[in-house]
Amino acid sequence: MCSRPEPPLRHVAVVGGTHGNEMSGVYLARYWLRAPGELQRPSFSAVPMLANPVATAACRRYVDCDLNRAFTSAFLTARAHPDDPYEVTRARELNQLLGPKASGQAFDFVLDLHNTTAGMGACLIAESAHDVFAMHLCRHLQLQSPELPSRVFLYQLPGEESYSVHSVAKSGLGLELGPQPQGVLRADLLVRMRALVAAALDFIQLFNQGTAFPAFEMEAYRKVSSVDFPRTETGDLAGTVHPQLQDRDFEPLRPGAPIFQMCSGKDVLYEGESTVYPVFINEAAYYEKGIAFLQTEKLTFSVPALPGLAPAPSPAP
Amino acid sequence: MCSRPEPPLRHVAVVGGTHGNEMSGVYLARYWLRAPGELQRPSFSAVPMLANPVATAACRRYVDCDLNRAFTSAFLTARAHPDDPYEVTRARELNQLLGPKASGQAFDFVLDLHNTTAGMGACLIAESAHDVFAMHLCRHLQLQSPELPSRVFLYQLPGEESYSVHSVAKSGLGLELGPQPQGVLRADLLVRMRALVAAALDFIQLFNQGTAFPAFEMEAYRKVSSVDFPRTETGDLAGTVHPQLQDRDFEPLRPGAPIFQMCSGKDVLYEGESTVYPVFINEAAYYEKGIAFLQTEKLTFSVPALPGLAPAPSPAP
Repeated sequence: MCSRPEPPLRHVAVVGGTHGNEMSGVYLARYWLRAPGELQRPSFSAVPMLANPVATAACRRYVDCDLNRAFTSAFLTARAHPDDPYEVTRARELNQLLGPKASGQAFDFVLDLHNTTAGMGACLIAESAHDVFAMHLCRHLQLQSPELPSRVFLYQLPGEESYSVHSVAKSGLGLELGPQPQGVLRADLLVRMRALVAAALDFIQLFNQGTAFPAFEMEAYRKVSSVDFPRTETGDLAGTVHPQLQDRDFEPLRPGAPIFQMCSGKDVLYEGESTVYPVFINEAAYYEKGIAFLQTEKLTFSVPALPGLAPAPSPAP
Repeated sequence: MCSRPEPPLRHVAVVGGTHGNEMSGVYLARYWLRAPGELQRPSFSAVPMLANPVATAACRRYVDCDLNRAFTSAFLTARAHPDDPYEVTRARELNQLLGPKASGQAFDFVLDLHNTTAGMGACLIAESAHDVFAMHLCRHLQLQSPELPSRVFLYQLPGEESYSVHSVAKSGLGLELGPQPQGVLRADLLVRMRALVAAALDFIQLFNQGTAFPAFEMEAYRKVSSVDFPRTETGDLAGTVHPQLQDRDFEPLRPGAPIFQMCSGKDVLYEGESTVYPVFINEAAYYEKGIAFLQTEKLTFSVPALPGLAPAPSPAP
């Protein structure tokens, strides 16, 4: 995301099925495609989209490669070839529909709906703290349901190119809800995701109407590195996430605490020098990526005010 | 299972990975293949086996068709063809290794390890109450951990041919533990499954040593029928399992109680005439089978005593 949304925001997309077995977004996107009225607001309309229809039909995360890692300039600008992985071809299509990435024609905002098998509750995934609009949206969502934490996760490492679906828009956010097994739709998470999407659209409506949002202090978790499972010589799992770490996403992990339990019964301890905050603990899709959990650091930083716009004119009748 | 185990039992198999993304059994089978000592008992040895290595490598339930439905006489006796589904070919291999089904050469007992995304705790899956040896084993497992229920589920409908992996042996049982997402290994379920396997092998050892087991009253759940999700005209989900039914496996479902929540917000009520006991509620692998949950009836029946054998001679040194 090299540009910023041009106020007021006119082009918004709500995307499900970027991963075809994360069922909350798959179900909602399919529903909104049949009944798009729920996404409408007076100052803009939001387009529902099923990002990976082939993987969704197969109820798999992807068929060839992870679509949510395919929005790099290498993939988007390379000459198309019949042997390209399906998701690379689809990333180019989505880049035409929602982007082009880093251009003035790109959508103002993309909200991308995900599930995790980790016990992360509601997690708001932004590239970095520099997206001030996204940070204000996160704050708005947090204030909507203070009794249910919505943590902010900043996933992009310094110097790393953005690669997610929502990176094709001028601003964007991933909504990650868990725990939910792949291929399963839970009513409780569905209701929560639907409420978060509604609140996000309401925020854009408020912004378009001229509402100003004051500066605030944001608490967020920033990715530092990943930790793989213990493995056998042939690459199979040699241990599992320790019961004392399982389901403890966003809680402090201190040096010396157990992180894995070997099949022999032996514990593996966290040998880092400082406290970290694990997230995506035991996420099913990350086994093949060599990730048992991500280590994050907890940050507090100031987000500047979002000034009020002149009220947007009503759309022509 | 047309024959009965010949006492004492000499040939026992513990099978994991019949479904390649049910990770407790996959992990344990791989571990025991490296370290088989844990399965040994004085009067017999138990062979660990990875039932579907191709699906396991892909972390999928199956690659062509469900292996745990492939042990029918139609599949096992048909002439092999190069275009046969992988799992049909593998079923024939397993039938050679562990059977042949319904023959005197078949293994005495097969224990088959599964996970479900449903909140079923530990569930002991037998074909029918007629397998007296399996019923006594279930009773033994229940008495081992009375604080953690291990319910007995009888899956075979009257007149239906048996089709599961363990049906190739003279007797057998499926261990089903949940909830666990597909592709995820949870330490808590792993510890429980390992303890149940150990207790099952200990029971066979006791039986081989001449222990008699008295008659008892068994409570079990017998499959009656299945219920599909509400669907759109194109077959997509139109609703999800109702929050009041989710995670309530084995609890009574009474006429008039809600079973689904439509995306419109409307509730769908259970219209049956009698109380049933749903199991496999919201099992990920059953969406494609058109099953939101299975309806069972709760039975109580008498299981006759299992008489003591003459003590088995020690194996030659």
